[in-house]
Amino acid sequence: MKKNSFKIISGGSITSPAGFRSSGICAGLKKSGKPDMALISSEVPAKASAAFTSCLFAAAPVVYDKEIISRGKPVSAVIINSGNANACTGRKGLANTRMMAKTTASLLGIKSGSVLVSSTGRIGVQMPMEKIGNGIRKAVSALSTKGGHAAAAAIMTTDTRPKEIAVSIVISGKKVTIAGMTKGAGMIAPGMNAVPHATMLAYVTTDAAIELRLLDKLLAEGTELSFNRITVDGDMSTNDTLIVMANGQSGNKTIKSGTCEAAIFREALLHVLQHLAKAIVLDGEGVTKFVTVKVLNAPTVKDATVCAKAIANSLLCKTAWFGGDPNWGRVMAAAGYSGASFNPDKASLYYEKTPVVKNGQDAGTPEKKLAGIVQRKSFTITLDLKSGIHSSEVWTNDISYEYVKINADYHT
Amino acid sequence: MKKNSFKIISGGSITSPAGFRSSGICAGLKKSGKPDMALISSEVPAKASAAFTSCLFAAAPVVYDKEIISRGKPVSAVIINSGNANACTGRKGLANTRMMAKTTASLLGIKSGSVLVSSTGRIGVQMPMEKIGNGIRKAVSALSTKGGHAAAAAIMTTDTRPKEIAVSIVISGKKVTIAGMTKGAGMIAPGMNAVPHATMLAYVTTDAAIELRLLDKLLAEGTELSFNRITVDGDMSTNDTLIVMANGQSGNKTIKSGTCEAAIFREALLHVLQHLAKAIVLDGEGVTKFVTVKVLNAPTVKDATVCAKAIANSLLCKTAWFGGDPNWGRVMAAAGYSGASFNPDKASLYYEKTPVVKNGQDAGTPEKKLAGIVQRKSFTITLDLKSGIHSSEVWTNDISYEYVKINADYHT
Repeated sequence: MKKNSFKIISGGSITSPAGFRSSGICAGLKKSGKPDMALISSEVPAKASAAFTSCLFAAAPVVYDKEIISRGKPVSAVIINSGNANACTGRKGLANTRMMAKTTASLLGIKSGSVLVSSTGRIGVQMPMEKIGNGIRKAVSALSTKGGHAAAAAIMTTDTRPKEIAVSIVISGKKVTIAGMTKGAGMIAPGMNAVPHATMLAYVTTDAAIELRLLDKLLAEGTELSFNRITVDGDMSTNDTLIVMANGQSGNKTIKSGTCEAAIFREALLHVLQHLAKAIVLDGEGVTKFVTVKVLNAPTVKDATVCAKAIANSLLCKTAWFGGDPNWGRVMAAAGYSGASFNPDKASLYYEKTPVVKNGQDAGTPEKKLAGIVQRKSFTITLDLKSGIHSSEVWTNDISYEYVKINADYHT
Repeated sequence: MKKNSFKIISGGSITSPAGFRSSGICAGLKKSGKPDMALISSEVPAKASAAFTSCLFAAAPVVYDKEIISRGKPVSAVIINSGNANACTGRKGLANTRMMAKTTASLLGIKSGSVLVSSTGRIGVQMPMEKIGNGIRKAVSALSTKGGHAAAAAIMTTDTRPKEIAVSIVISGKKVTIAGMTKGAGMIAPGMNAVPHATMLAYVTTDAAIELRLLDKLLAEGTELSFNRITVDGDMSTNDTLIVMANGQSGNKTIKSGTCEAAIFREALLHVLQHLAKAIVLDGEGVTKFVTVKVLNAPTVKDATVCAKAIANSLLCKTAWFGGDPNWGRVMAAAGYSGASFNPDKASLYYEKTPVVKNGQDAGTPEKKLAGIVQRKSFTITLDLKSGIHSSEVWTNDISYEYVKINADYHT
């Protein structure tokens, strides 16, 4: 087995990389009184890349951040709130986002154009700007090189646990650290008036010195291979955001495209992104199972991904997994209607390494044996289309009573 | 309000049109001992049109029927079984389908190429041909001009009730009858070894004389405006089938394209198809709500339909409806990620006729008033995109605990 070129940092957080401070505080946005505002600050301006929701109703902070990121200039801080999504809030919502950036910048003594903003929470309600202003002041005061864990807790909505990771690599003799935190698909609302919403927010900090164009490329590729490969309920949010900041404070020689160092950085970044993405699936609402869906030997990568996602999103497959039911007919039907191009008479299906379907027909494995596999907490389904050379992998979970309960029953 | 040109026939069934006989019998395919085989027979060869699943893993009877229908020759009978889908069964499955047609034809004294076959039930298991053969004999013996209701009951899987309708119109002084039956999205299995599967089967009989090309056109259009506009769980089946047979026994002058008679027939046929499609949604598993999703003023019909379907399929919307929660953020988010092209700042949303969102922002209606609407058993959600002149309408339902229970818990 190939050895990884990176090391996991035990108890790491987004403040593990050099030159980053962070904080997580209570601004009073959540009725529960739990932390609801986080700040990430780099001591020097950092190169920044980002990926955002493609939802037409993009929230105000997404609209604002896209504009900042598109300029390609360095970023010094990200101010994040949970409790209010600032989506479907029109011009006033955008003005409030700008005000959040301006307040943060002014307190940090930096340009407001170097501050990004993220929001998650209720849709369609204007931000309570007085609370927000006070919260930003608290967050700036609380900034610390040990503040990573507090930030990871403050971005949670109904996540059951913070999701964070840090890894280190060695580049030109220097220890380079890459860390990340994310919040995922939790939709329980804190109170009866709240409109809950699922949003993926993720932040990666690194002290690497790296070319911006390479960082952009690695983030785009990494997003596709991590967050774009997970599905909890198939609903995309108005606020989905992934931001990476690279501040160069490790002192390494700038990582350039096409080098061995780029490959090492790529592997470590991909691990961070995939770890965070899988953590979202594992912490999905009411989740009892983690399912890896692999599609092999498709005519194109797109065919493989479309096919894997159809299976991963199928409500019939998800409920069967919840029930620990091997029901392979549902898997084959989802593959068949996915729109992927392949020869159905050649397709073979495996649960872990056990044959389920051979060349489009029952492979004859006893149902009891298959049930034993899908009753595990985590398993892999592999569909070999034998119609090409391209593959794809998607991570998903089951749909339980608890999922329906959480999303239907939160108000009285 | 426009008056319909058709009349509903109280207690009507697929044997209401002249010259059709039908039966529904027990062949022993279902462990429950419930009826599981139906036969529709026309006393003279009938013009036939059909629509089938686009799933790559089309079941053997779908492959067979497509071939028969593509010839454009008349059809005299359809033999239908519930309990076994004959899907993912390879060459043997196809040979068994041909054998079913041949046996039926031989007993009826007609050509085997004039018999269509439909199957629904477990995937991946070969048909028990001895039971099937005996069943066909019973079904032929039981044929009756009063057999429509028995057929409607025999095609059910876990539907809670038969779904049938008959209407009459007058064409060139003759009473013409159009009738239909369908089975829908029921997925509870009769026993612990069964692999349940959702399949839509629908059959329309009419004694109209009509040009085949016109019948094809009206069926294609009608399918798009009925069965293709419903969604229960977004999972397409390997066996979905819609067959219409027109035997001309009413004695009307042949209905031709572009005539007033064609318009009258079209309206009645569309009513039959839409009634059956809505009946499937209403009888969906664990359903507590019937929701009509209308999208108005889109740039194209495709945009309108894609947008309406994204809302109708959204698990977050469906669980919110189950909970009687007005949660409009989920509706807007689904519209936004649907891929439909529109200006989000112009979009307005209505629950029944009550404004919810105006130009992309909260319309200010008290949440309690909105909750009162979505807590009804049936309601309409209208999204006005104000970005064009095209509209679409989709029928859907909620997702309840019961849905998850039915699809996860059927085996012990």
